[in-house]
Amino acid sequence: MSTFFIPEKSEFVEANGVHFAYRKFGKETGTPLVCLVHFRGTMENWDPELMGRLAADRPVIIFDNTGIGESSGETPSTVAQMAKDAASFINALGLKQVDILGFSLGGFVAQELVMQHPDLIRRVILAGTAPRSGTGLRSRNDVREASTGNIEDADSAIQQFLFLFYRPTETSRARGIASLKRIFGQKKFNSSLQVLKAQSEAIAEWAKQGSDQSYKWLNNITHPVLVTNGIDDVMVPTENSYILTQHLPNAQLIIYPDSGHGHLFQYPHLFAEHAKLFLDA
Amino acid sequence: MSTFFIPEKSEFVEANGVHFAYRKFGKETGTPLVCLVHFRGTMENWDPELMGRLAADRPVIIFDNTGIGESSGETPSTVAQMAKDAASFINALGLKQVDILGFSLGGFVAQELVMQHPDLIRRVILAGTAPRSGTGLRSRNDVREASTGNIEDADSAIQQFLFLFYRPTETSRARGIASLKRIFGQKKFNSSLQVLKAQSEAIAEWAKQGSDQSYKWLNNITHPVLVTNGIDDVMVPTENSYILTQHLPNAQLIIYPDSGHGHLFQYPHLFAEHAKLFLDA
Repeated sequence: MSTFFIPEKSEFVEANGVHFAYRKFGKETGTPLVCLVHFRGTMENWDPELMGRLAADRPVIIFDNTGIGESSGETPSTVAQMAKDAASFINALGLKQVDILGFSLGGFVAQELVMQHPDLIRRVILAGTAPRSGTGLRSRNDVREASTGNIEDADSAIQQFLFLFYRPTETSRARGIASLKRIFGQKKFNSSLQVLKAQSEAIAEWAKQGSDQSYKWLNNITHPVLVTNGIDDVMVPTENSYILTQHLPNAQLIIYPDSGHGHLFQYPHLFAEHAKLFLDA
Repeated sequence: MSTFFIPEKSEFVEANGVHFAYRKFGKETGTPLVCLVHFRGTMENWDPELMGRLAADRPVIIFDNTGIGESSGETPSTVAQMAKDAASFINALGLKQVDILGFSLGGFVAQELVMQHPDLIRRVILAGTAPRSGTGLRSRNDVREASTGNIEDADSAIQQFLFLFYRPTETSRARGIASLKRIFGQKKFNSSLQVLKAQSEAIAEWAKQGSDQSYKWLNNITHPVLVTNGIDDVMVPTENSYILTQHLPNAQLIIYPDSGHGHLFQYPHLFAEHAKLFLDA
């Protein structure tokens, strides 16, 4: 496959007073795949190699949620409101039904979105994420420090992401560096300190250990779901993917070897093929 | 894909005084995939639908190990000896390197085989199986009774397999019945009581809780491994697939929804596509 480039210029759509920035690309027909990005990420944090492979078979839409990157407004401090905003954005595009790929915090938003609007969503991919009250979230100081640190400079960002998204093996790091070069080769917009603060609050609330540890609410998501992670995720411990799969009534699980949180960028070809098999089934 | 039929007539090869019955089919070039079948199974226990899909991309070899079905000799009562016999068979065919698919007891044999002969094996698929001293093996009386019961009659066999291999949902059972009809439509040879007795002993020894519960020995299998199971396997509890993936240094895990032990026959298309992605990587 030749190198794929995500369109550099955003389009905009307005909903509830927010101007949402987005980029749409790929095949023109089929159910669009809307991607929900991770903590502090803008739409430019998606690896173009993965996006290109996904877009070979369907329309792909990436966007900046409220107050992030090129979108206006103030980022809300709850996952529930992030999901409401995502639904407003999808509705504003005039789409009746979409597939969603939620990565990390984006996977929290994806779960809320499908619960709030079951008919708007056809199929769900949850990558490197956890259910509400998941296990081991925000438990490591070194991870919290790295993930909330300064990311103005691409080189230091690459070092942080290597630790947070990849395993300390030569093979994982080499693929991680390749992906991070692709990502930072396209990055023009960072998210603000307001995003950091609001999203941190939202994650803390999501991670809070509730009185109900049975994860029963996941039974309400009857959609086909593909749950994925690397074998050793230091940000959102991999065990959360097992929990999701055990409690979602219609979930497939794929765990990738020699990888962590960034498994989908480490194996863009394999992940896209697995996603295709799942989304086209 | 048009309906695929496994060749009805076996070929034979001799090694260490055993006449091994086998059937080889599919594409003529590529690394052959040698399949190791489950407890009490003969080579006719492989679903022809799955075999046909696997064989579209590579040579596939199914065989009766020592003392089973059409092969001569007496079935040994240890997994280690079953693996030695499987290696003799592969060597007798003149094959220098193969991929292996081990299902259930066949997955125990596959683990022993790759430890004994690391150079003979390229890639390994472990379906519905467990490491030595795995968790919850042989713990359910109803499962033990059903799996050791009479299987002379196809109708009662189908009822037993439905319980052992599929989930009690309408969707899982419907696909289970379809697979079992394909399997029993081709079955001419059953395994003997000697097989039942010897394999039961081998499984009991494999399941025995050892003093070392760290599963450290799995670190020695550095081959690429694909571990698969259904979300709710009553024969070999699904948790064993997580354990395998966590301790094998280079393992991918796929768990299928709404399914159990027989996941590979329930989703022959999807399983074969996943196997192809793994074997061709």
